[in-house]
Amino acid sequence: MTAMPRHRVQVPLRWSDVDAYGHVNNVQFLRLLEEARILALSAHGTDDGGTLLSSHLVSTGLLVARSEIEYLRPLEFRVQPVSVDLWVTSVRAADFEMSYEVHDGRGGAPFAQAATVLVVYDLAHERPRRMSAEERGRLADWADAPLHWRHRRAPAR
Amino acid sequence: MTAMPRHRVQVPLRWSDVDAYGHVNNVQFLRLLEEARILALSAHGTDDGGTLLSSHLVSTGLLVARSEIEYLRPLEFRVQPVSVDLWVTSVRAADFEMSYEVHDGRGGAPFAQAATVLVVYDLAHERPRRMSAEERGRLADWADAPLHWRHRRAPAR
Amino acid sequence: MTAMPRHRVQVPLRWSDVDAYGHVNNVQFLRLLEEARILALSAHGTDDGGTLLSSHLVSTGLLVARSEIEYLRPLEFRVQPVSVDLWVTSVRAADFEMSYEVHDGRGGAPFAQAATVLVVYDLAHERPRRMSAEERGRLADWADAPLHWRHRRAPAR
Amino acid sequence: MTAMPRHRVQVPLRWSDVDAYGHVNNVQFLRLLEEARILALSAHGTDDGGTLLSSHLVSTGLLVARSEIEYLRPLEFRVQPVSVDLWVTSVRAADFEMSYEVHDGRGGAPFAQAATVLVVYDLAHERPRRMSAEERGRLADWADAPLHWRHRRAPAR
Repeated sequence: MTAMPRHRVQVPLRWSDVDAYGHVNNVQFLRLLEEARILALSAHGTDDGGTLLSSHLVSTGLLVARSEIEYLRPLEFRVQPVSVDLWVTSVRAADFEMSYEVHDGRGGAPFAQAATVLVVYDLAHERPRRMSAEERGRLADWADAPLHWRHRRAPAR
Repeated sequence: MTAMPRHRVQVPLRWSDVDAYGHVNNVQFLRLLEEARILALSAHGTDDGGTLLSSHLVSTGLLVARSEIEYLRPLEFRVQPVSVDLWVTSVRAADFEMSYEVHDGRGGAPFAQAATVLVVYDLAHERPRRMSAEERGRLADWADAPLHWRHRRAPAR
Repeated sequence: MTAMPRHRVQVPLRWSDVDAYGHVNNVQFLRLLEEARILALSAHGTDDGGTLLSSHLVSTGLLVARSEIEYLRPLEFRVQPVSVDLWVTSVRAADFEMSYEVHDGRGGAPFAQAATVLVVYDLAHERPRRMSAEERGRLADWADAPLHWRHRRAPAR
Repeated sequence: MTAMPRHRVQVPLRWSDVDAYGHVNNVQFLRLLEEARILALSAHGTDDGGTLLSSHLVSTGLLVARSEIEYLRPLEFRVQPVSVDLWVTSVRAADFEMSYEVHDGRGGAPFAQAATVLVVYDLAHERPRRMSAEERGRLADWADAPLHWRHRRAPAR
C-alpha cells in the first residue's frame, strides 16, 4: 500500500474561539474537529468511488459516542486556517474510531491530537445500524495507526 | 473516612446547546463541564478551610491538558439544570485529574461521564508550577475512584 | 391598571461568554436575551390564565425577524445571574416586539437594552400566521413603553 | 468617484451555527458579522495606503456600542462560505457605523442586513479616543448609503 491514507482539511478559526486567556479555548478545539469531520465528509460524500465515507453513510447519520483529546501547545488566533488531519483507527460492526491531529500545516509541532468514536445511526428508526461490507471496506482504506496518548492516567488498580 | 467526597453542582442548559438533531450537542457537553468546574471552584475558592481548591490555586490558573468523555444517553433541552458530580481521581506534582458525571439528579442513568487533566499554571511566568503539600492534601480530600471507561478502543498492538 | 407589566428572569452567565477583552462578548448578549425569552416563555407557557404567552403560541413557533441592542456598560463574568426584564412594545397581526433590559438586579445602571421583533410562525405550513384576538390580548397585558434608543444614527436624507 | 466602496469578504459557516430549527441561528448571524469585520480589518490593517482601517486603529481597539439586524430569509447550512459586504455609513469624532449585507454572492436576495456602531477605544487608558483627520478620511473613503430598515417599529408617541 503506497497511498497516504490521512485526509487533510483546512479549518478557519473564529475570533470567538479565543477565550479570556487569549488562546483558542479547549472546548472549541472539539468544535474545530467537528468542522473538520463535516468538511471531510462533504468533500467525499458526493461521488461514487474511493471516498472516505459513502453518501449513504452520511445521510443515515453519525452520532459521537466518545471523544478524547490532548492539548499539546497553545493556539493563538490567526486569520489563516489550521490544518486538521483525519484518519480511521478502528472499524467495527456499527461504529468506527476517527483520529485527528491539529497543526499549522507547515511542519510545526501539533497543537492537539484527538480521537472520536462515531456510531452509524439510523435516524428514521432511532437506533444504530450495522455497516455493509462495502462501507467497512471504504473506511478500512483510510486506516492508519492509532494515536499514542501521552497523558492518559493509569487505570485504577 | 465517612464523607462523600464528590461535589455536586447544578448547571443550567441553554437552548443554544441543542443542535440540529434536537439534542444537547456533544461539544457543548464539555462546555457544561467547564461551567461545572468553575461553579465548584467558585463555591470553594473563597473560604479558608477544607475547600476543594484554595483561592491561591484558582488565582494562579488552571489549564486543561486533556479531556475524555463518553456519551451514554441523549440529553434533550430542559429548563431545569442538569446535575454534575465532580471528584478528583489523580494528583501529581503540578497537575491533577478531575472526573465528572452528568445526570438528572433524580437517580436516572447518567447522560455522560468524563475526565479532564488540569495543569496548575503560573500565569505570570507562563509555566506550570508545583503544588504545595497543602494544596495536594486538599485535592486528596476530594479523591474518589476513577471512572470505568466503557468505550475505549484497545491500544494498538 | 396598576400592575407592573415587566417580566423579570434571572439568566446565569457562562465563563465562555467572556471574550479576549475580559468582558461578556457583545454577541453573547443576544444569547442571554434568547435565554431570557425562553425562560419567560417556559414560566408562562404551561398554565391557562393571565400568561405572557399561551402554550399554543409557543408550540407554533416564534422566529426572530429583527434585533436591536445598545451596550451601555461592560459586564464582567460573575457567578451570580444577571437580571433581564422583558416586556411587549408592539403587537400586530402576526408579529410583536419584545423589549429587554439587562441589569444587576440591585438598582445599578443597565448593561444593555434591546428589542426583538418576533414573528408568530406556523411551523407545519412554514408561514407566518395571524394571532387570535385572545393571543393579542394576552400580549397587550404585558405592554409597556418602548425603549429610548440612545445611539441610533440619523436616517439617510 | 467611480470605485465601489463596499468591501466583500467570504465567511465560512459552521455546522454548529445551525439551531434546532435547521437554520443558521439568529444570534450566530452576529457572529458571522464579527468574523467578517475581523477578516476585513485583517486584510486592510497591515499595509499603508488606501486601507479600510489603519493598523493603528485596529491595534488601539474597537468596541461594539450598538447592533441592529434584520433577518430577510432563512439561511441553511452550506459548506460554501457566505458573502458579507461591509461599508461605512457614519463617521464621528470617536466612533463610526459599519453596515453589512449577508448574501450568497451570486445575486440572490440577501439573508440579512445589519449595522454596528464601533467606538474607537484606547485600551491602555480604558476610554474612547478621538480619531485623527487621516483616520476619519480613510473611513470616509469607504462610505456608502445607509441601509433602509424594513421592520423598525414606529417610535413611541
